[in-house]
Amino acid sequence: MSNHVYKKVELVGSSPNSIEDAIQNAIATAAKSLKHLEWFEVMETRGHIEDGKVGHYQVVLKVGFRIVD
Amino acid sequence: MSNHVYKKVELVGSSPNSIEDAIQNAIATAAKSLKHLEWFEVMETRGHIEDGKVGHYQVVLKVGFRIVD
Amino acid sequence: MSNHVYKKVELVGSSPNSIEDAIQNAIATAAKSLKHLEWFEVMETRGHIEDGKVGHYQVVLKVGFRIVD
Amino acid sequence: MSNHVYKKVELVGSSPNSIEDAIQNAIATAAKSLKHLEWFEVMETRGHIEDGKVGHYQVVLKVGFRIVD
Amino acid sequence: MSNHVYKKVELVGSSPNSIEDAIQNAIATAAKSLKHLEWFEVMETRGHIEDGKVGHYQVVLKVGFRIVD
Amino acid sequence: MSNHVYKKVELVGSSPNSIEDAIQNAIATAAKSLKHLEWFEVMETRGHIEDGKVGHYQVVLKVGFRIVD
Amino acid sequence: MSNHVYKKVELVGSSPNSIEDAIQNAIATAAKSLKHLEWFEVMETRGHIEDGKVGHYQVVLKVGFRIVD
Amino acid sequence: MSNHVYKKVELVGSSPNSIEDAIQNAIATAAKSLKHLEWFEVMETRGHIEDGKVGHYQVVLKVGFRIVD
Amino acid sequence: MSNHVYKKVELVGSSPNSIEDAIQNAIATAAKSLKHLEWFEVMETRGHIEDGKVGHYQVVLKVGFRIVD
Amino acid sequence: MSNHVYKKVELVGSSPNSIEDAIQNAIATAAKSLKHLEWFEVMETRGHIEDGKVGHYQVVLKVGFRIVD
Amino acid sequence: MSNHVYKKVELVGSSPNSIEDAIQNAIATAAKSLKHLEWFEVMETRGHIEDGKVGHYQVVLKVGFRIVD
Amino acid sequence: MSNHVYKKVELVGSSPNSIEDAIQNAIATAAKSLKHLEWFEVMETRGHIEDGKVGHYQVVLKVGFRIVD
Repeated sequence: MSNHVYKKVELVGSSPNSIEDAIQNAIATAAKSLKHLEWFEVMETRGHIEDGKVGHYQVVLKVGFRIVD
Repeated sequence: MSNHVYKKVELVGSSPNSIEDAIQNAIATAAKSLKHLEWFEVMETRGHIEDGKVGHYQVVLKVGFRIVD
Repeated sequence: MSNHVYKKVELVGSSPNSIEDAIQNAIATAAKSLKHLEWFEVMETRGHIEDGKVGHYQVVLKVGFRIVD
Repeated sequence: MSNHVYKKVELVGSSPNSIEDAIQNAIATAAKSLKHLEWFEVMETRGHIEDGKVGHYQVVLKVGFRIVD
Repeated sequence: MSNHVYKKVELVGSSPNSIEDAIQNAIATAAKSLKHLEWFEVMETRGHIEDGKVGHYQVVLKVGFRIVD
Repeated sequence: MSNHVYKKVELVGSSPNSIEDAIQNAIATAAKSLKHLEWFEVMETRGHIEDGKVGHYQVVLKVGFRIVD
Repeated sequence: MSNHVYKKVELVGSSPNSIEDAIQNAIATAAKSLKHLEWFEVMETRGHIEDGKVGHYQVVLKVGFRIVD
Repeated sequence: MSNHVYKKVELVGSSPNSIEDAIQNAIATAAKSLKHLEWFEVMETRGHIEDGKVGHYQVVLKVGFRIVD
Repeated sequence: MSNHVYKKVELVGSSPNSIEDAIQNAIATAAKSLKHLEWFEVMETRGHIEDGKVGHYQVVLKVGFRIVD
Repeated sequence: MSNHVYKKVELVGSSPNSIEDAIQNAIATAAKSLKHLEWFEVMETRGHIEDGKVGHYQVVLKVGFRIVD
Repeated sequence: MSNHVYKKVELVGSSPNSIEDAIQNAIATAAKSLKHLEWFEVMETRGHIEDGKVGHYQVVLKVGFRIVD
Repeated sequence: MSNHVYKKVELVGSSPNSIEDAIQNAIATAAKSLKHLEWFEVMETRGHIEDGKVGHYQVVLKVGFRIVD
């Protein structure tokens, strides 16, 4: 069990509402094609500005999943 | 159009409520004196503690805007 | 007064709800055994994924407090 | 539209001519199998030396593309 | 030949025995589905503790392989 | 003379042609409003992809200039 | 359960034999005074040289443990 | 009060005497044109060598000031 | 002897006079409660500005001490 | 063969023309006194500004060469 | 005695067997031409892959030695 | 003139008195065997503790000098 191998992929999620929402959107998209998702790591938080306000948040994150032979 | 030049300024926004609020406050202040704000990048998230709780969040961010000749 | 000495400890707070909540949980726990907490610095934001969604957020933060002789 | 999710892949392009050429080669190769390529970020610039001259440049870059459901 | 393009993927290998073993496990798993593996770069070394001893080592590494058209 | 004070500003230049051109564009723009420009430091090199090719390079750089009392 | 709070302490272990041994020594020492040790992260690997050979390895690591109220 | 917004500017101070002097020179210059200066952060310490001795120290620092509406 | 284990703690010392003084203050405070202090590492140098001058220096440092069983 | 030992030296090349030229100049100079040069790694790209234009590029690079017993 | 000056050189050692062996090989080579070697710091761990296994480990390290006038 | 090539060497200077003194000691030693020293860059500041006080400061710095053909 302690010999598991994992892969990390780097995604960018976005949301007009919050940083948490941007993270959730990226993970939800990853979950459509990848199984055994286990953890995420936020790499960068940024976003676009529209009319002097945050238009949307963009969160760069790495998502780790277990590789099943 | 692809020859645009942008400038980034570094700001610190604060809010007792949330990280997103601190970001919005910094951007709203920037928007009073700068035009063509296009994006932001969070550099650090920190804050003050009061009575064993978050007193306010402080977010250091860079804000990018297009320089118009 | 300007000769104060502070110590920083590194904590990891977690919460199923939000990044702010994970920060608050870590600070609330620190406040049980440490006095004179003054500020925090977020070092990393990460979390666990369960069923294709964020299971809980984990925020690594440093908490600074004044050392009173 | 602001809920787009992107993926980044890390590539190394090489060229005997220039840094720009090494970047173009990596992107051209990526474009053969990936759609909706939107941006790149240079991570490292390095290369091999042959006969006391640059043999070829190697550029490590991340390429971002939109994930279309 | 100097126009080769490579891709890097990020993996986490684990082993109860040693750091080298954790690296080998990750590479062996990668070799099942990827060809032309050429090099690896260790990004992080960490692990789990069980009963006051290292339970297993976890090594985060990037593995580079040549893309063959 | 060795008591000079300098300021650095952070700019992003872009060009469809080359990294050097993107740097030159940023500096030329800076030179319209700032005097005594002395040096630059490249912080990041990135760009947009259009039709599977580099659309334009974007170079983030800091530009240093002497402050004249 | 997902509201657990953890603390990290930074240690330096040493050993004349191997990097793994230096890690084990640090963890064994930590386990004498701390409970609920869960993970470690290697921060730096270094060492002393004696007679043109490694005298001993020194590994700087952070050790994380759960805080039990 | 906790909604204050701050701006940081990056300066380079120099002095033939000491690191502290170089910092003071940069801050004194900043204080001529900026109000509400509150803190500084040293980013880099470097300098010029003349005749096998330090000719002058150069300290790159960020200076933070409150933006007053 | 080469199996010694050390712990590092992170402190912030301050002084209105100099960077060295701020370091000394932090170490003197640490020495009141910790034995076997062996080395320090400066992590950050910063400070407060008062009336357009350095009010006091703040030095973030790690202090390492040997753990005696 | 896999027991080769290499040394890296850090150089700064400059050129009024291009980043590639600055790299070539540094390598050409290194090749006058060092044999078995094998690779280079760009650490920083910077330069001087003259009359509102790039006066010359300065590239900080590490050059690796095999040590032959 | 506390006015000693040291120099650091950057080396890359390799070995098909282990990370420790690669470190030892680099130090043994350094010891042939340098005296007063005192410590080493691992900068990077990487390696080549052959036939889906580690061909050899490559460790980039800095070696410090005292300069004797 | 703008095609000059420079080399950087990494040194550690120490002094019981101050950070500036440690820098000066390293540069004075370098000046005994190297010509055309032009600049230095502080990489790390650390030191030894003796009797609950700074025993001596150690400053890791890079020293740059022009290579004369």
